[in-house]
Amino acid sequence: MAATTIKALVFDVFGTVVDWRSSIAREAKESLAPKGGDADWLGFADAWRGKYQPAMERVRSGGRGYVRLDVLHRENLVELLAERGFDRLSETEIDHLNKAWHRLDGWSDSPAGLTRLKTKFIIGTMSNGNVALMVNMAKHAGLPWDVILGAEPAQAYKPTPQTYLTGVEWLGLEPAEVLMCAAHNSDLLAAGACGLRTAFIARPHEYGPNQDRDFKAEHAFDYISENMLDLADQLGC
Amino acid sequence: MAATTIKALVFDVFGTVVDWRSSIAREAKESLAPKGGDADWLGFADAWRGKYQPAMERVRSGGRGYVRLDVLHRENLVELLAERGFDRLSETEIDHLNKAWHRLDGWSDSPAGLTRLKTKFIIGTMSNGNVALMVNMAKHAGLPWDVILGAEPAQAYKPTPQTYLTGVEWLGLEPAEVLMCAAHNSDLLAAGACGLRTAFIARPHEYGPNQDRDFKAEHAFDYISENMLDLADQLGC
Repeated sequence: MAATTIKALVFDVFGTVVDWRSSIAREAKESLAPKGGDADWLGFADAWRGKYQPAMERVRSGGRGYVRLDVLHRENLVELLAERGFDRLSETEIDHLNKAWHRLDGWSDSPAGLTRLKTKFIIGTMSNGNVALMVNMAKHAGLPWDVILGAEPAQAYKPTPQTYLTGVEWLGLEPAEVLMCAAHNSDLLAAGACGLRTAFIARPHEYGPNQDRDFKAEHAFDYISENMLDLADQLGC
Repeated sequence: MAATTIKALVFDVFGTVVDWRSSIAREAKESLAPKGGDADWLGFADAWRGKYQPAMERVRSGGRGYVRLDVLHRENLVELLAERGFDRLSETEIDHLNKAWHRLDGWSDSPAGLTRLKTKFIIGTMSNGNVALMVNMAKHAGLPWDVILGAEPAQAYKPTPQTYLTGVEWLGLEPAEVLMCAAHNSDLLAAGACGLRTAFIARPHEYGPNQDRDFKAEHAFDYISENMLDLADQLGC
């Protein structure tokens, strides 16, 4: 397809742009090792992330009104700390650890790749993370977003169509002028069903040795790339 | 006051960050002179801008639901073109001229000042302009926003409190952690009434020789500055 019709690129963030797993493991160790924990910190990260989709599903299914991801993350963290026997954290300490999601590191190619892509396109987030989380993470990881879109602006979690379509509408564009970029086949299928263009960015190590899917593009997406620099190459940036 | 308590700066944009008057006059001349117009182009800009507050007031008063500023600008433009006898523009030409608001130039100190302020604070828009307008303008004028807040996220026009407070909430901050920066006394008074900190940036030439107010700060704002670079100096950036 002709890249000349694309005006904006919007990105899934957790896993696609940033490496949540090793970042959360590092932060969990920093917060919890002094509390006597000798846990498997990558396992802790996986377990926290494991509560993510079920928590959002309660919102998507209508069982609960929209609440921002910071709130869901904190509820899941409190539950996980109890499960793992960490019972000596103050509310302030829990808040600090919860905001580890605001301090995730980018994959090594993300800042440079996004900087190149930004020269030619509007680049924005299309994440389930809330605005404060995205803004703080961008400052931490050097992600040069033009605009923060996604769940909080739409008051709805992906893959609800409203999430993608509110972002497109706020950009004043047609869906076919917006390229959804993600490391997850399901996210791209949902965006594609809304009329957006699609770009797969391979992140085969997102889940470490536990990864069981999304090793490669499984559908005929408009672009299939190895990383953010490869995507910039393909888009002529 | 201690700048250390401030986490984010949000900005009025039209007049404070960009020079709408000479930019719109230039664009009006480019679009309309070939149509046989020999109008006073700065007067055309003033007249278009003059329809801005009445159009928003219909939304603020509840007489009309929220519609984005691009729509109000276009309705006002169609009205103005008729008043001035320009009756030979196609819909595409009207759309192009309407998007002149997406192509406003910054005051000369704005890009450098914002770049300095961004090193220490989150910087965002708190404008009545819609998201697409703000994003496109940022690309055109080199304005390095971290986040686009304001009327469209809040679905309400300033000085409605909801506009300021939705932005503060999305940033995950308390009002007193956010500094509202504007060249207009009334905007700062409204933000201050919501608990935000306030910074006046003098723009005594915004309305050219027709300026009749806002030559200086008329209230005890937290910061009073001559331009964006002066504000950066005062905030230690």
